[in-house]
Amino acid sequence: MTAAFDKLLIANRGEIAVRIIRAAKELGLKTVAVYSDADAQSLAVRMADEAVRIGPAHATKSYLSVDAILQAAADSGAGAVHPGYGFLSENAAFAERVEAAGLVFVGPTPHAIRTMGDKAAARAAAMKAGVPTVPGSAGVVTDPDIAVEVAKDIGYPIMIKASAGGGGRGIRVAHDEAELRQQFATATAEAQAAFGNGEVYLERFIRQARHIEVQILGDGQRVVHCFERECSLQRRRQKVWEEAPSAAISEATRAALCESALRLANAVAYRGAGTLEYLYDDDTREFFFIEMNTRIQVEHPITEMITGVDLVKEMLRIALGQPLRLKQEDIRLTGAAIEVRVNAENAAKNFMPSPGLVSQLVVPGGPGVRFDTMLFPGYTVPAYYDSLLGKLIVHDTDRAGALARMRRALDELQVEGIHTTIPLHRALCEDADVAKAAFHTGFLETWLAANPLADAPAPLPKVTA
Amino acid sequence: MTAAFDKLLIANRGEIAVRIIRAAKELGLKTVAVYSDADAQSLAVRMADEAVRIGPAHATKSYLSVDAILQAAADSGAGAVHPGYGFLSENAAFAERVEAAGLVFVGPTPHAIRTMGDKAAARAAAMKAGVPTVPGSAGVVTDPDIAVEVAKDIGYPIMIKASAGGGGRGIRVAHDEAELRQQFATATAEAQAAFGNGEVYLERFIRQARHIEVQILGDGQRVVHCFERECSLQRRRQKVWEEAPSAAISEATRAALCESALRLANAVAYRGAGTLEYLYDDDTREFFFIEMNTRIQVEHPITEMITGVDLVKEMLRIALGQPLRLKQEDIRLTGAAIEVRVNAENAAKNFMPSPGLVSQLVVPGGPGVRFDTMLFPGYTVPAYYDSLLGKLIVHDTDRAGALARMRRALDELQVEGIHTTIPLHRALCEDADVAKAAFHTGFLETWLAANPLADAPAPLPKVTA
Repeated sequence: MTAAFDKLLIANRGEIAVRIIRAAKELGLKTVAVYSDADAQSLAVRMADEAVRIGPAHATKSYLSVDAILQAAADSGAGAVHPGYGFLSENAAFAERVEAAGLVFVGPTPHAIRTMGDKAAARAAAMKAGVPTVPGSAGVVTDPDIAVEVAKDIGYPIMIKASAGGGGRGIRVAHDEAELRQQFATATAEAQAAFGNGEVYLERFIRQARHIEVQILGDGQRVVHCFERECSLQRRRQKVWEEAPSAAISEATRAALCESALRLANAVAYRGAGTLEYLYDDDTREFFFIEMNTRIQVEHPITEMITGVDLVKEMLRIALGQPLRLKQEDIRLTGAAIEVRVNAENAAKNFMPSPGLVSQLVVPGGPGVRFDTMLFPGYTVPAYYDSLLGKLIVHDTDRAGALARMRRALDELQVEGIHTTIPLHRALCEDADVAKAAFHTGFLETWLAANPLADAPAPLPKVTA
Repeated sequence: MTAAFDKLLIANRGEIAVRIIRAAKELGLKTVAVYSDADAQSLAVRMADEAVRIGPAHATKSYLSVDAILQAAADSGAGAVHPGYGFLSENAAFAERVEAAGLVFVGPTPHAIRTMGDKAAARAAAMKAGVPTVPGSAGVVTDPDIAVEVAKDIGYPIMIKASAGGGGRGIRVAHDEAELRQQFATATAEAQAAFGNGEVYLERFIRQARHIEVQILGDGQRVVHCFERECSLQRRRQKVWEEAPSAAISEATRAALCESALRLANAVAYRGAGTLEYLYDDDTREFFFIEMNTRIQVEHPITEMITGVDLVKEMLRIALGQPLRLKQEDIRLTGAAIEVRVNAENAAKNFMPSPGLVSQLVVPGGPGVRFDTMLFPGYTVPAYYDSLLGKLIVHDTDRAGALARMRRALDELQVEGIHTTIPLHRALCEDADVAKAAFHTGFLETWLAANPLADAPAPLPKVTA
């Protein structure tokens, strides 16, 4: 199906570039890092066998430049490209260009990216596969009058969502007909401006839902699931704290949820790693498919912890043309895992970004602890990209054990020189609702308003020894 | 059985003190570190809730001083003492003193320590329990003439072993009667001088055996095993590289081996974590019990990786009086794990100790990697104690995957400022025999003679950023 390759180019940066290099090395593949001028000193550049400059700091001229990345692949003789997450990872045209250049794209087919990456098309595919979706329009709605008619069936409040949106972008909420008419025009114009595609669709707004997602892996012939993650703790629709499995659902719901994910992924003969995102309503115990991410996710390590499956190595094996090694019955859910995102942000100051020199780094150890980061002592976090510094992941035999382990590991973790979200996570570990997993997607923003974090003194670079 | 406690004193230092503090914190226990003057700046002191000075650097006046440790327990109000490994961990009189002071000893009863810690008594107990032992004397041999008679039955070469010895100390080999008579007197005198007990016994010397050991856990009522480790890669009888499971034994042998360990541990109603050490003969597929360690071992993390059992937390739960939570059928062997010991030694210069300032530390991350250490950047490794700096542990779905992961993780691990055994481990990762697990307890010394390591330039403290 795909040609074998022995050199992999990683079209990304930060901790995910490091993660992919690790997997490639373990498979005996040579690695090529690409870097912008802001990342010339990065850990990925240090770790890769080769590194190629692809442009200036601004992502549109480097990590989003298809031409620059394909040139780097040609220059280095790489046979495959792993897109990571973000940047070009869900860009079907990029995948096509990679394949047209005779390279292997480590991910799904351009067709699958296109189908599942378009929210309206993904929703239609889900309905066709018998996967429950949030009550809403059957597809794209282009006329405000039709929107008003559809809204009467669905009920207010209602969401207007951009087909090409993602990560919470391109969403507006209307509480009545007047607001719907007004927001409809705004949403269409905004979607056109932001995504180059003005198409929108409508969905019921579920107030207190959990965000639950299912990890799948396919080889184009066969698909397996690796159970679910719960990512309800979000700020501005960005995940902050993730768990696997979800503490909120029954075994029967888990089985139905994962089975529905397999159904949808099989319907598109899915290849690679993918995630199907759902909303889960605690009251009705219903789950609704909302969208699919056709790439590896930031929070994939918690799934690796509860299943023992190395998702990135499996992605690479599939890209190497190997049939999926995993049988569904061999994938067991063991224990519980939690991941927290450590961002370069000052949580006490409205999460203001905090780039700069990391003067000291102390990484936690012991059983069931993993810290995936691009940090090293002496690294300067650039101001150009997202603020994710790393992910602290713990695993234990049950959720209470994992929470105790997270508290212990956060005590050990020291990142000096810049502000990080470590204090936020320490506070969340002490919260009674978090301890009970009593949360929904709106929980964290409410919690933050009620629990202002103390403004820590600016952590000055510390001279040791 | 034992009283509950909420504060634990750790009667040890280095990485095992850090390990125990981690487990105690996860169980919500308060921790008391003890330290000699050489360890006032240690990571254990930094991490514990309280730290008590117990004396000068010399271990006999600090970590081996029962009085100093009991005083520290009294002063801090600790309710229990964890002895770690080495130092007082297998000293039955210490365990008695701890219990006499009204404290919980985290380990077996003094009686079990005494029985199993005495090699001749342990051997007798094994024979009684139907556990195969190395052909040898039925017990202690006090007379050289009897030794000569016994040796005729066993055959030469023969080992003379001190009853109170351990870790390879107190062992002499004789190849004929004359040498036996000469060595017998020397061995007895040496054992008296080294251990305060001159008793010796005789055993067949097995030339090319593997060292395989079984981890067990008991609560005084019931015992479970956590499968085996293979620790054949040794230098001067000190383990250097450990694996779990052993790649050399069949499922049938594994079952018989673990079952024999349960039989012996049940015979002494064992409480706590313990390890039964065996020699395994590849040719005959026989295993022979050699001795038991009645404490946690350095290499316990590989067992934790393949079973998901946190051995140190389980030790503490048992000490807290909780019945063993684990059922034998719930303990599954998953994948393969390897541990390498990172010592402060210059392998190119006959493993000369290399204490000093650690100027930089970069810890590997990613899936299936754990680094248990007492190091932190800016720490000065004291010259007074053993040279173990930490243990790099990896786990993957099979041994080949674990070996690839070890190679990758060793590439990432950087300890700057002192010599370490990291280059040795990197070289072992590339060895064809190591790749096949084709080794025995004499392998490494032969390998070292044939594969001299390049003398690395002294790693100067590096100033970063």
